[in-house]
Amino acid sequence: WLHHPASVHQDGITVEGLIRRSLEAKEFAYCPYSRFRVGAALLAHDGKVFTGCNVENACYNLGMCAERNTICKAVSEGYRSFKAVAIASDLIDQFISPCGGCRQFMREFGTSWDVYLSKPDGSYVEMNISELLPVSFGPEDLSMKKVLKIPNKY
Amino acid sequence: WLHHPASVHQDGITVEGLIRRSLEAKEFAYCPYSRFRVGAALLAHDGKVFTGCNVENACYNLGMCAERNTICKAVSEGYRSFKAVAIASDLIDQFISPCGGCRQFMREFGTSWDVYLSKPDGSYVEMNISELLPVSFGPEDLSMKKVLKIPNKY
Amino acid sequence: WLHHPASVHQDGITVEGLIRRSLEAKEFAYCPYSRFRVGAALLAHDGKVFTGCNVENACYNLGMCAERNTICKAVSEGYRSFKAVAIASDLIDQFISPCGGCRQFMREFGTSWDVYLSKPDGSYVEMNISELLPVSFGPEDLSMKKVLKIPNKY
Amino acid sequence: WLHHPASVHQDGITVEGLIRRSLEAKEFAYCPYSRFRVGAALLAHDGKVFTGCNVENACYNLGMCAERNTICKAVSEGYRSFKAVAIASDLIDQFISPCGGCRQFMREFGTSWDVYLSKPDGSYVEMNISELLPVSFGPEDLSMKKVLKIPNKY
Ligand SMILES: [Zn+2]
Ligand SMILES: [Zn+2]
Ligand SMILES: [Zn+2]
Ligand SMILES: [Zn+2]
Repeated sequence: WLHHPASVHQDGITVEGLIRRSLEAKEFAYCPYSRFRVGAALLAHDGKVFTGCNVENACYNLGMCAERNTICKAVSEGYRSFKAVAIASDLIDQFISPCGGCRQFMREFGTSWDVYLSKPDGSYVEMNISELLPVSFGPEDLSMKKVLKIPNKY
Repeated sequence: WLHHPASVHQDGITVEGLIRRSLEAKEFAYCPYSRFRVGAALLAHDGKVFTGCNVENACYNLGMCAERNTICKAVSEGYRSFKAVAIASDLIDQFISPCGGCRQFMREFGTSWDVYLSKPDGSYVEMNISELLPVSFGPEDLSMKKVLKIPNKY
Repeated sequence: WLHHPASVHQDGITVEGLIRRSLEAKEFAYCPYSRFRVGAALLAHDGKVFTGCNVENACYNLGMCAERNTICKAVSEGYRSFKAVAIASDLIDQFISPCGGCRQFMREFGTSWDVYLSKPDGSYVEMNISELLPVSFGPEDLSMKKVLKIPNKY
Repeated sequence: WLHHPASVHQDGITVEGLIRRSLEAKEFAYCPYSRFRVGAALLAHDGKVFTGCNVENACYNLGMCAERNTICKAVSEGYRSFKAVAIASDLIDQFISPCGGCRQFMREFGTSWDVYLSKPDGSYVEMNISELLPVSFGPEDLSMKKVLKIPNKY
């Protein structure tokens, strides 16, 4: 993966533009527990951009990450095909990386689209889903041939 | 809780209208594993309506319910105060009820707003968060006085 | 629901004994993020007791509650039928109550078993699953008649 | 990563033995919704082995994977340092791979321990956490320097 100091994405919106949208989305983060704000901006196949933030819960494990929030938002408006997602946080010395749960959530919608891990200054690293979640388990695997039928004992 | 054959909500949108929006939102459900479609429509404090659906994952436990999707969507656009949420499914003989995870997620944003559990024919039951999640654990409880300081051993 | 100053459970272990086990289990909590320790002790149908604690994660929403941990532990050893679960935390002024996610997880294994919400001094409140999660959605509901077949468009 | 037709692990238990334990653990899977059984066997730093299975829920997203179940079980008995985990499923043509959520859960307890992805015939692939979850986000990152203090507006 590489640093891209400046580049243009295929749909008119630049990578820089997508990252800027993720930084703006971060402002809406509801994170009273971690105080760790995250924003995401998702580019759909037709050029439409969706944005989201993390939404935490007093029961920590019921909270929601920015990336999953954003994908769910797009799905709820009929989108299931994506080109790229940019992620932003407040960490100054580190490119914010998606958690494993979000990588799996992204992978549901394909393994070859791009993820931009950014810093607040707009610099970023580009990786695709396959790099972030190698040898992944996906929708196809659930219908593969199994060694035995499970007895209907439930 | 009661059956309301017809009523008007305080913001111009009727309960029937909110339920209709949740039925429409259900159409976008991504549920290849359960084939159980759910839609939700959330009425914010200022009358704005947000809609969402369930979004499943090959790793079942990483999926998202319609109710949480919808609330996250609203939070990602700056909303944190809600009046009511309507829920819709394809079950004909039963009012669709939110799971415990969603009840906790709703409760993060208050205990006194309304939930409309609907059937596809538009009939519904009205309950508030306190009724759905009695003696709940919420944001306030995390800062309550504890019996002892935990040693910093992590 | 009532305060029971002292009582004996049907399997030889007293409610006090079960709560003591949940207090001990709390000591193993891995909660570097919330510093909110929770323990649980689950009484199976045959009198066997399982214990568990919360296990948090840097990605907050991937953590695990004590109650779910404990039930999963029991299931992993062949148990699916339970009589009661006791919950303990460090809150001195409040009976610790299960989150909505855990209520739903308990409900998977029946609606009529007991939950003991305790304080560190051993006092407690007794509620059953139906009281904690009224009008719940459960295993039966997934197979109920639906209004329409969903087109196989996934 | 490589195929190991036969090998001995450092603590007396062979990799084959650990995989056999994961296959046995799979028998306890509670998976009435996916009918996709998974088992896991976790080797702790001192040679102790813990086993677990997946535990599903009518609200799919509240279920539990075998790997997380097993790690939580170990933590609930005081363990936080692990050497390896073996995973088993019923898929005959494929090495079962952990979901992203479980990779993140494993990573909480270190990035350099081993994961054995197995088939029912006992053959397997060995990977470590870093390979499964590259450029991961972990416990250290939450305390890193941030670009700005978030206003206390919650
Ligand atoms: Zn995430
Ligand atoms: Zn739900
Ligand atoms: Zn819980
Ligand atoms: Zn998993």
